[in-house]
Amino acid sequence: MQHTGGRVGSRQTGAVVDQPELTVQGWGPAGARVATVAEREDGGDPADGVLQLTTDPDATTALPRATRRYLSRELGWTPRSTPPVPVSTIQLPPPRLPAAARSALAELLGEENVADDRTSRLTHAGGKSYLDLLRRRAGDASDAPDAVLTPGSTEQTAALLRACSAHGIAVVPFGGGTSVVGGLAGTDVDDRPVVSVDLRRMNGVRALDVPSSLVTVGPGMRGPALEEELAREGLTLGHLPQSWEFATLGGYAATRSAGSAATGGGRFDDLVAGLTLATPVGVLELGTPPASAAGPDLLGLVLGSEGTLGVITELRLRVRPAPPTTRYEGWSFRSWAAGLAGLQRLARHDLLPDVVRLADPDASRGTLLQSADGGSRLRTGRLGAGLRSGLRSGLRGRRRGQACLLVVGWEGLPPIVRARRRAATSVLRDDGAIRLGHRVGEAWVRHRFAAPYLRDRLLDAGLLVETLETAATWTALPRVYDAVRRALHDSLAGPGRRPLVLSDLSHGYPTGASLSVTVLADRDDDLPIQQWLTAKRAATDALLAAGGTLTHHSAVGVAHRPWLAREVGELGVDVLRAVKQQLDPRSICNPGVLLPD
Amino acid sequence: MQHTGGRVGSRQTGAVVDQPELTVQGWGPAGARVATVAEREDGGDPADGVLQLTTDPDATTALPRATRRYLSRELGWTPRSTPPVPVSTIQLPPPRLPAAARSALAELLGEENVADDRTSRLTHAGGKSYLDLLRRRAGDASDAPDAVLTPGSTEQTAALLRACSAHGIAVVPFGGGTSVVGGLAGTDVDDRPVVSVDLRRMNGVRALDVPSSLVTVGPGMRGPALEEELAREGLTLGHLPQSWEFATLGGYAATRSAGSAATGGGRFDDLVAGLTLATPVGVLELGTPPASAAGPDLLGLVLGSEGTLGVITELRLRVRPAPPTTRYEGWSFRSWAAGLAGLQRLARHDLLPDVVRLADPDASRGTLLQSADGGSRLRTGRLGAGLRSGLRSGLRGRRRGQACLLVVGWEGLPPIVRARRRAATSVLRDDGAIRLGHRVGEAWVRHRFAAPYLRDRLLDAGLLVETLETAATWTALPRVYDAVRRALHDSLAGPGRRPLVLSDLSHGYPTGASLSVTVLADRDDDLPIQQWLTAKRAATDALLAAGGTLTHHSAVGVAHRPWLAREVGELGVDVLRAVKQQLDPRSICNPGVLLPD
Repeated sequence: MQHTGGRVGSRQTGAVVDQPELTVQGWGPAGARVATVAEREDGGDPADGVLQLTTDPDATTALPRATRRYLSRELGWTPRSTPPVPVSTIQLPPPRLPAAARSALAELLGEENVADDRTSRLTHAGGKSYLDLLRRRAGDASDAPDAVLTPGSTEQTAALLRACSAHGIAVVPFGGGTSVVGGLAGTDVDDRPVVSVDLRRMNGVRALDVPSSLVTVGPGMRGPALEEELAREGLTLGHLPQSWEFATLGGYAATRSAGSAATGGGRFDDLVAGLTLATPVGVLELGTPPASAAGPDLLGLVLGSEGTLGVITELRLRVRPAPPTTRYEGWSFRSWAAGLAGLQRLARHDLLPDVVRLADPDASRGTLLQSADGGSRLRTGRLGAGLRSGLRSGLRGRRRGQACLLVVGWEGLPPIVRARRRAATSVLRDDGAIRLGHRVGEAWVRHRFAAPYLRDRLLDAGLLVETLETAATWTALPRVYDAVRRALHDSLAGPGRRPLVLSDLSHGYPTGASLSVTVLADRDDDLPIQQWLTAKRAATDALLAAGGTLTHHSAVGVAHRPWLAREVGELGVDVLRAVKQQLDPRSICNPGVLLPD
Repeated sequence: MQHTGGRVGSRQTGAVVDQPELTVQGWGPAGARVATVAEREDGGDPADGVLQLTTDPDATTALPRATRRYLSRELGWTPRSTPPVPVSTIQLPPPRLPAAARSALAELLGEENVADDRTSRLTHAGGKSYLDLLRRRAGDASDAPDAVLTPGSTEQTAALLRACSAHGIAVVPFGGGTSVVGGLAGTDVDDRPVVSVDLRRMNGVRALDVPSSLVTVGPGMRGPALEEELAREGLTLGHLPQSWEFATLGGYAATRSAGSAATGGGRFDDLVAGLTLATPVGVLELGTPPASAAGPDLLGLVLGSEGTLGVITELRLRVRPAPPTTRYEGWSFRSWAAGLAGLQRLARHDLLPDVVRLADPDASRGTLLQSADGGSRLRTGRLGAGLRSGLRSGLRGRRRGQACLLVVGWEGLPPIVRARRRAATSVLRDDGAIRLGHRVGEAWVRHRFAAPYLRDRLLDAGLLVETLETAATWTALPRVYDAVRRALHDSLAGPGRRPLVLSDLSHGYPTGASLSVTVLADRDDDLPIQQWLTAKRAATDALLAAGGTLTHHSAVGVAHRPWLAREVGELGVDVLRAVKQQLDPRSICNPGVLLPD
């Protein structure tokens, strides 16, 4: 196993600095969101990583009463207060970068771009998985890097990789720090010093070729900043994962991210026309748009390489005119099986809308009940506020508790959206779906980035909360759905306790769809990490056995690497190792992730 | 250089067998087409490869008079008779398979699946490039394999690769034998024995998952047979390259083929959801539909690997319902620049039809002049018969000689085709295009596979004729077009002689398009191979310098491998070599292609 509960509290020998204004938060309070994003645009603000400013009084807001009551009843959980430790008490070991290496790096990058102060190191420790948050909340930052480097160019990045390779220093690329699979593990089997390479200085639009719909960007740029620049030309990238506000474009590429509009082209690997990868042995320039048959696809080998082959230092992305029409709406199906069948029929006939989200009965019921709380204070990212009445009437009258909520969205030229929508509507009606109207759809759009903000409050109240995801063919999907639910129930249920498992079909393709599964349960306060690792292992074994993929859009990281050979075979892993050996012969690039030890 | 003129006539020490009924043909006479395909469906007929039955009296038909006159005038060429040698005079060296290896292979596959007779070897020599045909026509079959193996399963293929690796025997996978880039070179730097692995026994539909739109097939299956089986379920694959009648599905995957409907999803790499690759060290099973983020895309590493990593033994392909509506039509633009601008505007707004073919002024004029010959006897695959009047009136009245012909096609559900067509029509009209009507489009559909059939007659009359192709962004495309034309003119023009260069924009994408360039010239009868290699080198250098890709849909083979590092860098070539070293440590898999020596 890659995670061990024993790591919590190890290496806690460092100095403690008093920073009382900061607290450990995963995503931070919802109210702080806009300010945080704005601060981040200008480069290196301290809101990165585990630290969030607590300027919003909402941060301490407890869970709404109806939600507490509902979850208590469903989970057998007793609300309690389990706050994180204050940031000032987080212990950090002293930085281990050898003096010779440090001065070599300072010479390459400038002294100001080699930081080993406490804040820099803390804000670059780990990512945003449940396990990352558990550790940080417990005061463990043993995975913090020894220093943070901020190169300004491909050449500087290549040079620092060469230098780190020579000095035996492991390198963890850092974009938005939003990995939910332990992609920033920073764990090295040989326990070498580790540096974080923060790409925030390489963050602008470098070229825009409007006739060819191509934009060249730095990897440290974030979605909102790029969309703002593209909007001036009437263009959009249109990639909107849940981490959109914080994640970087380089991170999307390194992890093969998929956005909420993935059905309609928001899958990031489809948007990358070319990239530059700095490796310890040189620089690769890959991708020849529009398309090439000149040998195997090396660009596709870098996408999803998760920093293990080097650092992505430039991206050429496909953009498109901002859609003149967008149209979202809600529908209801009488059951999960009916919903799957309806979407499968749409998919087969290439009629899937650009956005498709089908909530299973538990997720649909949760949404409805939460909307009774007023929605505005508790945003789950599922549907949120403003849809109560439409939703109620749409789900009422269906077989009790079995109704499923569907959100669909179309984007594009009005007559084409109209024709596609009309054809899809006819298929949905044939399958017995009932239209709930556009308010349900629009509420989803407004709140689609909100779920992670809720997580801190659930953690504060003693809950386990994590999401896992997979994808499968339409034929295998019902099997995969059942298998994951059963595994999570079996693993997390106990005397008087059971988990709540909320599933969404989140991206549709002609051949299948992805499944996003959020689980809530009473947290085991003694062994919270083991509790989740056991459940995750059971769910992963089950979904792979049922024909699902290891991950549809979250990457491998630490969380999935024990199963990589199940996905690509031992020989496939050998091929990846051979590629890594060629580009990173001393194995300094993001050790501990992707490839099994 | 990979090809040398000196190879013609080498190794001509073998026995001569009298087979007077056979003659060397590239594609064979057009009249023989259906019969040939039908015969091929049942397995191993002797019409494969360089040999074609001459049962059709049309085979000896000379070029129509108007074409002869036109080409004489354009090229400064004097029609003459330069027939190929009779097949019976082609000399073949004795097979070199060591007895131990032969009996090991016979034990693995059965005696009947290890053939080293003259016909088997001749029909598996080389592919269909101009250089392949020149050599064969001159009586050179020095690249014929020493034996032809026909495995029946993944396990047998893996076992034969292991055995060949142990015995030091090179392996050339054989599908349809239609490579136009020397993909079946069979040349080994160490001059080891070579076997051809013909995949015709692995040629059926193995599974069909209709709800998931996936079909599992053997690699030796051909497009027409698959389409026939799919049609029974109302499905289609819809991949239609010019070699459709002969090429195999495995070959499409190994070469990253693109079909004539590539704009609308006919690019083969987009249709492969999974595959099995047998290698000398084991079997890889890759691809997890609908999509995965579990590490780098290893499936994309096998697509386009051209047999250098092993043999593809199974494919999982995406299919779709047969389109209820197809609609083709012709348009005319006043100039090439206007045509490019119009298509670029369509592309940017995601309004490109599923089929797009824009002929440049020379190609458009050629089409018009050829249609004066009646078309039915001289089918160039550009547009063919039945369009004379519409075409004439459409191109007349435009600036003399500058008009460009556009063929577009839509497929799908009627209301959506209607909406897309209406939107595209409005853009085309805004850009000054004139509609020529559906007959022009439908004529193109009827004759889209016809061009290769003409080639033998052009070769018989002393002409050089070959096609090269590339792709570039919309911004780079005009530059690439000019550069290739100039290079071909400069290389092939001489006192009183000049080439005719006919270009088509053949596949459109939002970011760019591909360019297909056919060149005709008076052949240098003394040094025909050097003549073409010099022109090809000049054109390739020029298109790469102007920003084009080395190949958009024909693979690397022997023809393009000297330039592979220009496309992916020396480091990219090193990565490919590392992958090959892992899977094919003794380098027996299709030596001489893809990777530079």
